[in-house]
Order: sequence, then structure tokens, then C-alpha cells
Amino acid sequence: MEKIFASLITIGDELLIGQTIDTNSAWMAQQLNDAGIWVQRRVAVGDDRQAIIRALEEEGADSHIILITGGLGPTADDITKPVLCEYFGGKMVQNAGALQNVMDIVQTRGLPMLERNLEQAMVPDAATIIQNKRGTAPGMWFEKNGRIYVSMPGVPHEMKGMMEGYVIPHLRQRFTMPALLHHTLITSGQGESSVAERIKDFEAALPAHMKLAYLPSYGLLKLRLTTFAPDQAAAEADMNKAFSELGTLLADIRVADRDEPMGVILGSLLKTRGLRLGTAESCTGGKIASMVTAVPGSSAWFNGSVVSYANETKMNVLGVRAATLEQYGAVSEETVKEMAAGALEVLRADCVIAVSGIMGPDGGSPEKPVGTVWIAVGGKNSLRTRRYHFRYDRERNTDMTCIAAMNELRKWLEN
Amino acid sequence: MEKIFASLITIGDELLIGQTIDTNSAWMAQQLNDAGIWVQRRVAVGDDRQAIIRALEEEGADSHIILITGGLGPTADDITKPVLCEYFGGKMVQNAGALQNVMDIVQTRGLPMLERNLEQAMVPDAATIIQNKRGTAPGMWFEKNGRIYVSMPGVPHEMKGMMEGYVIPHLRQRFTMPALLHHTLITSGQGESSVAERIKDFEAALPAHMKLAYLPSYGLLKLRLTTFAPDQAAAEADMNKAFSELGTLLADIRVADRDEPMGVILGSLLKTRGLRLGTAESCTGGKIASMVTAVPGSSAWFNGSVVSYANETKMNVLGVRAATLEQYGAVSEETVKEMAAGALEVLRADCVIAVSGIMGPDGGSPEKPVGTVWIAVGGKNSLRTRRYHFRYDRERNTDMTCIAAMNELRKWLEN
Repeated sequence: MEKIFASLITIGDELLIGQTIDTNSAWMAQQLNDAGIWVQRRVAVGDDRQAIIRALEEEGADSHIILITGGLGPTADDITKPVLCEYFGGKMVQNAGALQNVMDIVQTRGLPMLERNLEQAMVPDAATIIQNKRGTAPGMWFEKNGRIYVSMPGVPHEMKGMMEGYVIPHLRQRFTMPALLHHTLITSGQGESSVAERIKDFEAALPAHMKLAYLPSYGLLKLRLTTFAPDQAAAEADMNKAFSELGTLLADIRVADRDEPMGVILGSLLKTRGLRLGTAESCTGGKIASMVTAVPGSSAWFNGSVVSYANETKMNVLGVRAATLEQYGAVSEETVKEMAAGALEVLRADCVIAVSGIMGPDGGSPEKPVGTVWIAVGGKNSLRTRRYHFRYDRERNTDMTCIAAMNELRKWLEN
Repeated sequence: MEKIFASLITIGDELLIGQTIDTNSAWMAQQLNDAGIWVQRRVAVGDDRQAIIRALEEEGADSHIILITGGLGPTADDITKPVLCEYFGGKMVQNAGALQNVMDIVQTRGLPMLERNLEQAMVPDAATIIQNKRGTAPGMWFEKNGRIYVSMPGVPHEMKGMMEGYVIPHLRQRFTMPALLHHTLITSGQGESSVAERIKDFEAALPAHMKLAYLPSYGLLKLRLTTFAPDQAAAEADMNKAFSELGTLLADIRVADRDEPMGVILGSLLKTRGLRLGTAESCTGGKIASMVTAVPGSSAWFNGSVVSYANETKMNVLGVRAATLEQYGAVSEETVKEMAAGALEVLRADCVIAVSGIMGPDGGSPEKPVGTVWIAVGGKNSLRTRRYHFRYDRERNTDMTCIAAMNELRKWLEN
């Protein structure tokens, strides 16, 4: 069974100077994996002719499929199209479909039609054109020496439209793929080394076509099993057997049987139990609510949040007592309990997450250093509190707090 | 003036199957750029011996500096260290400093000392060791054929500690760098093509060592100027001249003179004017508050937010009238105005952002399709409202709404 290999080439100086975080590649890799295609390399290069040509050559040497994003915009720094035309031979021609698309978009948006917009419809005649329903730059499908090269815009939703509507379906037609499966168990409460120790016999006994990976992630540990097999049924049989064995070995620290965001995990627990959630957030500033509402349909189990950043807001909206804040401080078990009680009432919620902490860089003290967090979770008659101490920067302290707090509620719900 | 080139190699299957978004590379690229080092390529490969060796060879061919992250953990899928030992020659030896560090960490965390933890202190004798103050895996500095290779853990805060504490200072000592400057102007209200048209003479007249890039970003457009010069003073003189010319040309659509997050831009306006902000968020679910509180020191100008996801919360906490919700719906100018008024009062804020919309995938109707958003910004006596219609997926609709709403408040503050 031959594996089908892909490379991703991302073009744009913004990726090399750190101005943009590349989120496209992860999404594209997921799509390719779902189709049974193994991404073996991802390369980012600048808007530079030589660098682009070198990448095309190197990636074409070993990969069946080379997906390229970026550098197709209407401005002078975008050079991908002429470089591809040079590399694959031929000349630039006007594409009628792309022209119509540009004219439609310009008209819908009420923009003037500029010469540089018309140039968006000029394409290499060596390419099969992929129409862009979400923007002016068309995609291009090239073939050379038995390799497939596809060039798409770097704008995420334009690229996604082309991938889903054209690229993935056409790749599925062209290749007979092996089945490629990933399955992830999320655990919490034990470190990478200890877990590895517990399952070392299991790991040693895995067949050669299966792979186990350990991914520490914001205080959780994800264990990912990967398998290749000639067909879907065989892959699933292998996976089910190994995955259930792993799940049994680690049942006591299991969080979820899939790599789902914590919001999704909480959501399905809340839905099953018919409970509605509210949050009272100080140091996390609404990030827990934002993670919760990122889940489609969360309105079925989420009422809202009071982001009580200022002490005044803690008092006015959540009813935290001035005396509590004075005596124990905003970051204390007492305050977080009153925040939770207030949120349960004002948000008419069945259960609650309340957090208060010091995320840094400033605001720490010897008794309450930066990274100190109090978390309360539960319902009206069964509030649980816990103190954490994170030792990272502001951003990571916040993210760790969000996951820890949501995980505390998960434990409360599962008990 | 010779440019100093770097390559980044990221190792780990999780990057190739789309399980992890690579945020390290952007951060590392920023640090290198600040030091005058140009990152010319970023490559991600799997936990695979051959793939790692190929990357070391290819990147070593053209770059002076090769920074490697990932694959240094204590589990069987982590193979970077033995592969590096093989590639650079020599043998594995125990490093006393690294051993002490492992023992300290295991003790502090109250963990059992496992064989695999001790192995973390085994390092190739060809390497200079970089002690890891934040984890058990040491970093390694190799030199070969005049190239420098540095291997660091993939865990972001461990990598960051080594970069700041050791790698960047040592690279600065080793090379005489040219000055490399980036400066970004943020604009809003005009598309890439139109802006390019307005400044085409400016762009054509830029000297060869300067580069202009266009980065559309969530409804904003960022214009980045880059310059190289033998020394900092010359680079700054070039940059100041060109950047002020650009700023003058685009003064009417200028948002900011730096690539700062919108929260930082708003924060400095609010601080200058002595105003405190509150937000009332329905569809954005707390994300605006979360972006605002990501700014260190935001407690000086941010009171909090009411995330009124459920209609009940809009009524109970913000005082939106049932009749308004019934007559106009939750996504309407009338509702968002009452949300804003309620938030101003309950959060004791001087100014407010209120949003209500339909982010999708469900919830749309012919009159109010998915992507419809009402935004209100302003203060007690001067509320401004505006309707937007975004045409993306749930996540992007939310992000576009957050930036648009914050930008509306910015405009209100600047008038």
C-alpha cells in the first residue's frame, strides 16, 4: 500500500518576520489527513522568486501533492503567479470565468474597477483554474512530472472554500489512498513521564504501522494513536482495539475520547444533564465565556458571563461584599465563592465557573505572587474551590487558568 | 553589508496532522528580526530520522543559523536528540548541570524520579548545553561547517526562556548584524487595491533596499515597510522619512502607526481621555473583553463586561425590555442600544461597546441572515450604531465583529 505524501508551501514575508501566525497549514493538514494523505513537510518562504522556485523543486522531489498558499493578491509584493507561470512554462492569458468573478465582486462591493483588479483574471495557460467564490484571486492546478501543484490565496476563508469545493474532491478522485486514522485520548492530572511509564508495555506491543504520540497541552496531556491500513475497515479495527486498551489503562485520568476543545466537552456534559452554565470571570476577562460560545449551539446551555474585572463590578453586578474584598482581597477563596454565588443568581444559572487571579506581569505580592488563581465551580449547594499557581507569562497564565477552571467544572459534573 | 540568514526547523508529527498550530515560529522570527537576522525559511517535519536529517542538510546549505524546536521530550516519540547526536558526531554523555536541573524539578513537583527523567540529562558531547530553567529538557548548541544549529524544546515558555536568556545574546556576540527594521501602518475603510492605487507613486519611488507589503487583517489593512541598512541610524533615517510620507498620504484612513492589537490602541486612547470602558456582548461571547484584558494594565481603564448570551441575561442584568426583544428581536438596533445603555449603568462605565449578531452556522433568517451584526458604541449622551454583515464561518464572523466593534469605538473616541 503506497502512502500518498503532500508538502505545504506557504509564501509571504509576514510569516518569516513573525507578523502572522500560520493557521492555514494546520487546517489544510487536517483536511489532507482526513482524505488519507500524509503531510510530510511544511515550508514557509518569503515573497522571493528564487526562494519560491527552490521550494517548488525540493518539495516536488518527494511529495505527490504540493499545496501552495499566499502571494496572489493584487499588489506589487504578490509575485507567486508570475513565478509559477515561469516555473511551469507557458504564458499568461485572460480567464473568462475569473474575469466575470472579479467584475461581480467589484460590483457587489461598490468598488471602482481598477487595472490591478483586471490583472487578477490573468492566469498561466498551463494551469487549470479553480474559481474563487470568496475573493478575486483564482486558484491554479498544475501538473508536472507526475506531481500535482495547487496554488491558492492565503486568505483563510478563500483557501478553505477552494479546498473543500475543489481540491480535496479532485485529489480523492486521482489517488487511491490508504486509510489514515488519528485518535486522541485527553487526560489530566499526570505528567508525560508518569503516563509513559504506566503504558510502556502497551506502547512496546503496538504494531509497527501504529504510532503513539504524547502532547502536553495547557495542563492536560493528549495521547494520540495513529494508524495506516490499506482500507478503512482494517484501520478502524486496529484503532478500536488499541484505543480501547489505552482507555482502560488510563481510565482514572481520562478527560475525553477525542481531541475536542474543552468547551465542546463541557457542552455535551451540560446538555446531557440539562444544566445551564454561567461564568464570573475576573482575571480571565471573558476568555472562558469566549471559549464556551465558540461552540456552535452553545446558547442551548450557556446563559452568559459577568466579567467583573474591576472590584466595583464584582460588588455592583455580582454582589460581592466590600468587606470580603477588603479583608481577603479580590484574589481569595472567599471572593471567588461570592462571585460564584452572585453569578448563579444574576445569570439564573444551574452551575457556574468563577475565577479570580493575578495574571502578571504586575500585581503580585509575596503572599499572592503572579500566577495565583482561585477557582470556584459548582451549583447552589455544592461549590468547590481550588487554588492554582501558574508560573508563566500573562497570556499563558490566562490560557492555563481557563482550561483548569473548565476542567474543574467537568470533574464536578462527572461526579 | 552581508545579511545574516536563519532557518527555523520545527519537529513533530502534531504539526503535520494539524493538531497543533505553530505559534513558536512567529515569536522566534520576531526575536531574530529584532536582532537583525533575516529568517529565510521555516520548515516543519515529523518525528522521523530521515526527515530531520534532510532538513538539517538543506537548511544548513544556505542559512548561517538554524534554530530547531521540538522532539526533546521524555517519551518514545521524541527522537530529536539521538538524531542530532548522529548528525553532528560524538556520543551521549551525562551533563551534570542538566542532571541537577532534572532532580530539582522532579523534587519541586513532588514526582517520582524515573529512568526516563534521568535520560533527559544525557546529551551529545558535541553540543554546548543550554540549561533549561523551565523544564527538564536541556537545549543544545552545535557548530558545523561555520553554521550554528540550536536545538530547543517545543514547549513555548521553555523555548522562550532559552531564546531570551542564551540564544539571542550569544548570536549577537557572534555576528555583526546589519540593522533590519519593520514598521507598520494600520488603516481601515479602504481595500488593498484602492490603497495600492493611491500610493503607487510612493511605492515606485522606494529605494531598492526598502520593501512595502500589504496585509489585509480582519477588515483592516496593514502596510508594512521594511528596510535594511549597515547601521541602526541609517536604517532609522530611511524608515522615518518613508514612513512619515506614507502616513501623510493615508492620513484619512490611518488607525495606528504600529502593528499593535486593537486592545492596545483602544487602551491608550481611553487612558489619555481618562475614560473607563465596559462591554455588553451577545454574539462575541466575551471575546472583546478577552482581547481588552489581554493588555497588561487594562484594569486602569476597563471595568468589565456583561456577556448576555441568553435573552434572559439581556433583560435581567442589562435591563433590556422584553417588549424590545419581542418587537425587534435580539439582533436589532433597538436591542443593542438598550444593551449599551444598560452596560453603561451597571458597569459604571464612561463608554461602551455593545454587540448582538448571528455568528452561524445556524440562527439566520431571510431578513437577518447569518453574519448580521448590530454594534453600538459611545457614551451616555452619544450612542452610535451600525449594522454589519459578515459572510464567513462562525469563528471568523466573531473575530471580524470584535475588530469592527473596537474600531467603531476607536472612531468615536477620536472624534
